[in-house]
Amino acid sequence: MILEPHQIELIGYAAAFLTTFAFVPQAIVSWRTRDLSGVSLGMYSLFTFGVGLWLIYGLIIEKWPLILANAITFALALSILVLKLRYPRK
Amino acid sequence: MILEPHQIELIGYAAAFLTTFAFVPQAIVSWRTRDLSGVSLGMYSLFTFGVGLWLIYGLIIEKWPLILANAITFALALSILVLKLRYPRK
Repeated sequence: MILEPHQIELIGYAAAFLTTFAFVPQAIVSWRTRDLSGVSLGMYSLFTFGVGLWLIYGLIIEKWPLILANAITFALALSILVLKLRYPRK
Repeated sequence: MILEPHQIELIGYAAAFLTTFAFVPQAIVSWRTRDLSGVSLGMYSLFTFGVGLWLIYGLIIEKWPLILANAITFALALSILVLKLRYPRK
């Protein structure tokens, strides 16, 4: 199977879309249930910090796909982290 | 503040390291507690699929940083997804 360059690019965009918006259902579930007992504080601490660095990296190299995707993920991951800090267990 | 190219690259590597290994504490917490009630099935379904696409994308364009980071994240996200399917609630 030989893929055209625009088809390869499409796989990248689909991957970026999924890994960015995957945090929407988690944010909704955490917000609604306030059940953060099984959500790892370590994960969201490291992840939010990491996505913040991705955002800074994107801003420095001025790549809009990186900036946009990581700005959205940063907001979602941060909201889950804040909920975890407020509701550590049920 | 003006950054050297290798300093900018270092920010990217730190970001990649953190967003990859952030899933380690979540996998450990989920494995130990079997408490997946607050972990979103929607998130891990979309995320695992998305990281799988990142991995395919990395393999096609033959970029080892993408391949390595996403292979590790894929294994971690998949293990959390499998735990969620086995232990949907406490």
